[in-house]
Amino acid sequence: MIEEKGSLASQSTYFSTYSATQTLHQLAQQPFHLTGHLTPERIAHYYAEACGLRLLYATEQVNEEILQVLFQLAIESQAISKMAWMQKGEIVNFIEGESSEHRPALHTATRDFFKHPQSSSKAKEAALLAKQQIDRLQSFMAKIDLEDRFHEIVLIGIGGSDLGPRAHYQALRHLQKPHRHVHFISNLDPDEAAQVLKQVQLDKALIVVASKSGTTLETLANEAFVRERFLKGGLKPHEHFISITMPGTPLDDSDRFFTTFYVWDWIGGRFSTTSMMGGLLLSFAYGFEVYWELLRGANAMDKVALIEGQQNLPLLAALLSIWNHDFLHYPTFALIPYVQALFRYPAHIQQVEMESNGKLITQQGQFVDFETSPIVWGEPGTNAQHSFFQLLHQGTTPVSVLMIGFKESQYQEDVQMEGTSSQEKLLANLFAQSLALALGQSSEEKNRFFPGNRPTSILLGQQLTPYTLGALLAFFEHRTAFQGFIWGINSFDQEGVQLGKKLATKLLQCFTEQKEERPTSYSLGEAFLKHLNQVKTPLDPL
Amino acid sequence: MIEEKGSLASQSTYFSTYSATQTLHQLAQQPFHLTGHLTPERIAHYYAEACGLRLLYATEQVNEEILQVLFQLAIESQAISKMAWMQKGEIVNFIEGESSEHRPALHTATRDFFKHPQSSSKAKEAALLAKQQIDRLQSFMAKIDLEDRFHEIVLIGIGGSDLGPRAHYQALRHLQKPHRHVHFISNLDPDEAAQVLKQVQLDKALIVVASKSGTTLETLANEAFVRERFLKGGLKPHEHFISITMPGTPLDDSDRFFTTFYVWDWIGGRFSTTSMMGGLLLSFAYGFEVYWELLRGANAMDKVALIEGQQNLPLLAALLSIWNHDFLHYPTFALIPYVQALFRYPAHIQQVEMESNGKLITQQGQFVDFETSPIVWGEPGTNAQHSFFQLLHQGTTPVSVLMIGFKESQYQEDVQMEGTSSQEKLLANLFAQSLALALGQSSEEKNRFFPGNRPTSILLGQQLTPYTLGALLAFFEHRTAFQGFIWGINSFDQEGVQLGKKLATKLLQCFTEQKEERPTSYSLGEAFLKHLNQVKTPLDPL
Repeated sequence: MIEEKGSLASQSTYFSTYSATQTLHQLAQQPFHLTGHLTPERIAHYYAEACGLRLLYATEQVNEEILQVLFQLAIESQAISKMAWMQKGEIVNFIEGESSEHRPALHTATRDFFKHPQSSSKAKEAALLAKQQIDRLQSFMAKIDLEDRFHEIVLIGIGGSDLGPRAHYQALRHLQKPHRHVHFISNLDPDEAAQVLKQVQLDKALIVVASKSGTTLETLANEAFVRERFLKGGLKPHEHFISITMPGTPLDDSDRFFTTFYVWDWIGGRFSTTSMMGGLLLSFAYGFEVYWELLRGANAMDKVALIEGQQNLPLLAALLSIWNHDFLHYPTFALIPYVQALFRYPAHIQQVEMESNGKLITQQGQFVDFETSPIVWGEPGTNAQHSFFQLLHQGTTPVSVLMIGFKESQYQEDVQMEGTSSQEKLLANLFAQSLALALGQSSEEKNRFFPGNRPTSILLGQQLTPYTLGALLAFFEHRTAFQGFIWGINSFDQEGVQLGKKLATKLLQCFTEQKEERPTSYSLGEAFLKHLNQVKTPLDPL
Repeated sequence: MIEEKGSLASQSTYFSTYSATQTLHQLAQQPFHLTGHLTPERIAHYYAEACGLRLLYATEQVNEEILQVLFQLAIESQAISKMAWMQKGEIVNFIEGESSEHRPALHTATRDFFKHPQSSSKAKEAALLAKQQIDRLQSFMAKIDLEDRFHEIVLIGIGGSDLGPRAHYQALRHLQKPHRHVHFISNLDPDEAAQVLKQVQLDKALIVVASKSGTTLETLANEAFVRERFLKGGLKPHEHFISITMPGTPLDDSDRFFTTFYVWDWIGGRFSTTSMMGGLLLSFAYGFEVYWELLRGANAMDKVALIEGQQNLPLLAALLSIWNHDFLHYPTFALIPYVQALFRYPAHIQQVEMESNGKLITQQGQFVDFETSPIVWGEPGTNAQHSFFQLLHQGTTPVSVLMIGFKESQYQEDVQMEGTSSQEKLLANLFAQSLALALGQSSEEKNRFFPGNRPTSILLGQQLTPYTLGALLAFFEHRTAFQGFIWGINSFDQEGVQLGKKLATKLLQCFTEQKEERPTSYSLGEAFLKHLNQVKTPLDPL
């Protein structure tokens, strides 16, 4: 499957010097113009399909020549080799010459249990560890079902321990088992925990404390908050609290938790949905078999990511994204699911893409002279049509858009109005928006003029099932990884979050010093705290 | 209060030709550099306060000179006069020489019931109409309380009939009355209605169908969906369904609704939260007095928007936004509330700003040669710190940020850990992020290098109360209106949504034609429908 050879480190060329990059900059002077050139034949022709997901990209500003050079870019950057290395368990999380995490990124091993698994010893070992946890989970869930002791689950986690699991939980609500309620506590804001606990019957609740490092401030504070409630209620936390963490962390503690499920340092937080982070929640809410189907779908897309050519859906999507961002200079990327169940998917993809690729340096430790991750944002359609689509059509900062739609609804409950169902109306709107953005409209009246030529892709499927959701998950993970591989950056660390943490510690010290009436040790922090002490309950100003 | 005079139309100068604009372009060559120049004195000095909200902007790239020219820009563009005209009920929603809506934008009249109301006949008349509805609402709620017939409310609406009401409802959950449950159905996706109705006890439900025009496709489809459920359940819709609409629309129909509350064409959807659109929901969930307090806070900020100088908080915020977007060229604006209760506020502000100001032409009907609305996006902190903050710190597309924080939590329930409460940790993180983005960090190791000099503002208050929430609402409404006034565009129409609607109708026709085996009338639409018929339930690809 893989033909390229050679070391991935110490490259003498990089993104800006590739010959494909030079050619693409030239081609970008006159990209394919959608307005006036969008034909039914083009719509029929420009698509790729895998795992039941079809990517329609006739409404992107590309033609055969541009596509060909984009795929040359993938070859020059050894994109598929790097993907293969990643899935084999080679060290892809590193920066040459800098102290860095120096690890594999083996999230694909958390679902490598189906046909043709990876044969490298590292990937096999990782999959074995992951499978042991899955087997433990299956027994654990069978016991819960039998005992019927827990009707509620509260997932305490933040970042990757929250966004991915939550988005994927929300996506399958139609499969909810009876008497199973799911809650999330993530924010440091104590009002979130207070609000959530108003709705939880504690004696029936399984509390899951999830932090890979076992030291996440928010998660430990929220654990303490909830633990206090249990004690106040005369309940024994040890009978309700479990954890998900790496072996040996402060959360791997049998004094506090009646059991602990494991993840490892080769699973990045934002790539951890198919690990126990998502597995526990999905199995509790929908049953273990739903989680297993999700894994099956994700694994199928993992295989697709190793294929050469346009049927490699995540690679194609990554190349289109790079075309839009680095060459056509769209600063943002909007993800618009025409699927209400995916309403939290943009927030998940925001983390997957922006935390992975919001980087300043290459893996060779050089500052980049090109654009890395765009800003990722979005809301579901058709809702968004009644909100920010005005700007998409007539604003001065055009946006590249990916829409997601499914032929059939999940509940299969619908209403007919004026001869069509709501599902049909939903899809009509999806296609219409893609056409409107591409075609624009000339008009004598300037307020009814639409410039058009604004790019979209559409990801289309039959129905949002657990399998399809798994494929979607891996599609976006690999779309992000491919962009990182092509740019030659490290998509798997997050050094950019450290400075804020360091300063927050200094600020917290100011709070403590102030309470103890000691002199404050950080004058910039103190200046902010003064404002805090000056704000007052408002009086009517007039 | 207002000193400028003269017609607001037919100006010979506009944004690009103002002398302040020229000067600002020069100043933007060397904006204030935060890294290395942020002092405690600067943090103490750069703030403005109104209605209990304090805007800290020491961490914006401005100095006294830049601020002075920004306020000159406000004078040249007659920003405050235009705000006064708007609040008086003059016609501000127009495009010269084009057929356009030609209306006032009198959302401020929906809360002009306190000290020093507007004295113009148009504003007085509007406020009188609005007050009649409020009095009706108060009686209606008293009756509901007395009869105890409704325990649930389902708001069916989309866009402004959904985002604003929902964001403001979510913001005050700590005040929830017992036995009152709130649900929303907005999306055309029939799965949303199906999912929501699983949780609603229909015989105890008040169904509110909200559409200003009375013709919104999504809302009518969802009304039909819910109505069918009532009939199937042997319940009488007429005893449960009410509407909010303009007088005389298809929703103003006593055959379908047991009562109807009114809005008018001088309230834009995205500015309608203080009308019955938000009033009904907030009064049902929290009590009429909470809604009234919200109005009081919004009205107080309306008055502030008429003040000359830096204490005009929304004007100051608008000028800072224009500085960041038009002169420093940050393409996006992120709203990060360090308040979980405001988790849907970014979605609301997205509509308020992007639908209002995502425009291509001036009010004189000329294409703009400057940037109008930035892309608005965001998620709550501290959650976002564990998601996309990596990019904010080390990405190649810097973002201008507004953070919101409150000294005290709403529930006043908290936990101490290592000497500080969660609320203190939350605020420490807020300030720390602002500092980290401004200061950056030099480092020998390039992956630990932070460029810094990235701008933020902080909006700080004592506590998120109904009054403060009202002030916040009007702050953002006027921040948006001021930007529009300064750019000289029409912030009150939304012609950009029409083309998509028109093409959706053509696409829907293809669906119908296909079902009736007639030839399709729109070949581009037909091409998409073919794809829809080709997608299949996935088979394992390998």
